[in-house]
Amino acid sequence: MSSSNIPNGFKVGGVRSGISKKEGKKDLALFISEFPATAAGTFTQNMAKAAPVVVDIARLKRGGKFYGVVANSGCANACTGAEGKKNALQMCMEIENKFALPKDSVLVASTGVIGQLLNMQKFYGGVELLKSSLGKSVKNENDAALAVMTTDTFIKKAARKIKIKNGIVKIWGCVKGAGMIHPDMAGLHATMLSFILTDAQIDAKNLQKTLEKSVDQSFNCVSVDGDTSTNDTVILLANAASKTGKLAGKDLRKFADALDEITVDLAKQIAKDGEGATKFIEIEVKNAKTANDAKLIARTIATSPLFKTAVFGADANWGRVIAAAGRAGVPFNPDKIDITMGGIQTFKNGAPLNFSEKRAKKALLKKDIKVELNLKCGKCASKYYACDFSYDYVKINGDYRS
Amino acid sequence: MSSSNIPNGFKVGGVRSGISKKEGKKDLALFISEFPATAAGTFTQNMAKAAPVVVDIARLKRGGKFYGVVANSGCANACTGAEGKKNALQMCMEIENKFALPKDSVLVASTGVIGQLLNMQKFYGGVELLKSSLGKSVKNENDAALAVMTTDTFIKKAARKIKIKNGIVKIWGCVKGAGMIHPDMAGLHATMLSFILTDAQIDAKNLQKTLEKSVDQSFNCVSVDGDTSTNDTVILLANAASKTGKLAGKDLRKFADALDEITVDLAKQIAKDGEGATKFIEIEVKNAKTANDAKLIARTIATSPLFKTAVFGADANWGRVIAAAGRAGVPFNPDKIDITMGGIQTFKNGAPLNFSEKRAKKALLKKDIKVELNLKCGKCASKYYACDFSYDYVKINGDYRS
Repeated sequence: MSSSNIPNGFKVGGVRSGISKKEGKKDLALFISEFPATAAGTFTQNMAKAAPVVVDIARLKRGGKFYGVVANSGCANACTGAEGKKNALQMCMEIENKFALPKDSVLVASTGVIGQLLNMQKFYGGVELLKSSLGKSVKNENDAALAVMTTDTFIKKAARKIKIKNGIVKIWGCVKGAGMIHPDMAGLHATMLSFILTDAQIDAKNLQKTLEKSVDQSFNCVSVDGDTSTNDTVILLANAASKTGKLAGKDLRKFADALDEITVDLAKQIAKDGEGATKFIEIEVKNAKTANDAKLIARTIATSPLFKTAVFGADANWGRVIAAAGRAGVPFNPDKIDITMGGIQTFKNGAPLNFSEKRAKKALLKKDIKVELNLKCGKCASKYYACDFSYDYVKINGDYRS
Repeated sequence: MSSSNIPNGFKVGGVRSGISKKEGKKDLALFISEFPATAAGTFTQNMAKAAPVVVDIARLKRGGKFYGVVANSGCANACTGAEGKKNALQMCMEIENKFALPKDSVLVASTGVIGQLLNMQKFYGGVELLKSSLGKSVKNENDAALAVMTTDTFIKKAARKIKIKNGIVKIWGCVKGAGMIHPDMAGLHATMLSFILTDAQIDAKNLQKTLEKSVDQSFNCVSVDGDTSTNDTVILLANAASKTGKLAGKDLRKFADALDEITVDLAKQIAKDGEGATKFIEIEVKNAKTANDAKLIARTIATSPLFKTAVFGADANWGRVIAAAGRAGVPFNPDKIDITMGGIQTFKNGAPLNFSEKRAKKALLKKDIKVELNLKCGKCASKYYACDFSYDYVKINGDYRS
């Protein structure tokens, strides 16, 4: 059995409370620090923020030390009015009470169907089970990750150990999300849910800044369906249990790099597990005037239903790539650009190339597809992670609630 | 046989040239005026404008009188470099020569696969056939409309007769478009192609202004897949053959109203014939602060894959309506809004309503679905026309080129 990657001073777990209607599925996760931790978060910018998002933003703004995050699947607790807000708060308070934690020290996240009220009796029952289910084994890790999954088909987690001046620091993270995935998170503002734990010591301000920067080049660069959720949440807890002192300078940069590796790894896992996905797509826009220009174009390609169905069909229909790029709202000269799909150049200096359709078909039948667009009008680049659009996407989403 | 609606002084027709690979399908249309006509046009704002779009914009900017529009299906002549531009121009010149029309008096439009060069020999052959195929019968109307169709499943046309002070004025229009439909047309700037003919007398400036306003509340409010084409084109020719004098004042307003009826009628037909569509969806956002706010929200709902697959599955998943609305970039208070789907209210004052899932299912199994969102923060409204997202959409687009 491989050893657990949970950082020092954390316990995690997942149980079945019955909130999710999927028989036997674990649906309640808890991440607890044994020590007071600094916390950082990024949240959906959707106008219709779910109740747990509203609660977390308020708690993080107030600041202070945190001890944990409780998260359920099977019910998003979004668009649930005043009762939903009361329930989200009640979830935090129940964990604080039953685990003898300070007031206002727990955060909360939910995912599932929008517009249904949480079954609080089932939640309370789940908390009783959590009391005897927390730990730091690989099984605990997996139980926690499983409990927040909805239409996900595999567990998504990543971990790094960093050697710094005074010793070793660990970072571990998990993420759920396969549909309604197009995170657009800012500040104390995706339904992707990600929980990242570290035993490094980092003050809240640096933690928030480092997280925001990391999210911007990872979770904010992944799209399954273009639909930004009401519940997207990333929470990072740093509990200093590594006893390696406050991170600064080069050590903080090492931490930021490792965090970037984890968030990009998790973001790619989301795209690979996108609802109905048969292929992972990485889109890179190069030589744009600004990084934001590159990102806007990459995102527009990544969310084009015509492009995504073409990739599903293993059709090197590069015209859909340029059509999508052209409606991104970014000025460029179409007569200068190059396009490569699956390693095969299809378009050069604004004119179509003769390429072997047979070779292109073979390249696009692979599971990992890279698409590159060279704008030749600057020096900035951006990557975006996506998946194809299949019959199963329609099947999964034509009847999600029942 | 019903009588034709083609306005006075116009002849139209459609033939098979062989440009389209669909065996036997008509693929070349011509709309000719017997008299010099003023012309107006709106074109895609995609950065990668197809060669015919570039040619038309230049010709319309130069102004003057026009005698016709030639249009092909089966090849978009987009992203075809310098040769594509030469070919688009050559299409105009060939019609001018073979029909003895003044230089620079013909416009051009193309639709089909992006990135392939037009087969000019087949085009020239088609022009020979057009010479003996033009007329003003219902068959001529239908041939022209058929010749510009690609994945369309039915002919889309509309006509009005307006009684004005000095007599009767006719307007006739057709449109093609079922995929890559999310027109965003401006000024002398959608692949939907629409050709509108009128025997009214209107100066070019008023014609352009009237067309732009009409397109903005019709073709610019329809989406099949969110993908704005490289080729979208609307051309309106006014040849004065009604001999009712220059339209002004009340008569011009009557003309504008009739044009609006035609463009909305054609826009709705596009949504009804959207690729793979099983349902027509009309989204109305009411009581917004501005009409643009209402339009942005309606458009975001109309293009949400999660909303569109829910409608396909006849699932009253209104949470996806509010989630889409919330990411439109328009501020609103989610605690105030109401949502109605298929006539059934599901959400009121920001809280979910208990509604009969059985009744909702029945309502959403209908072919015409109306979704209303009441923001209660202003007095402006906007409508958007869309269709559902089905297995057939994926099928049609997973293998479009072959």
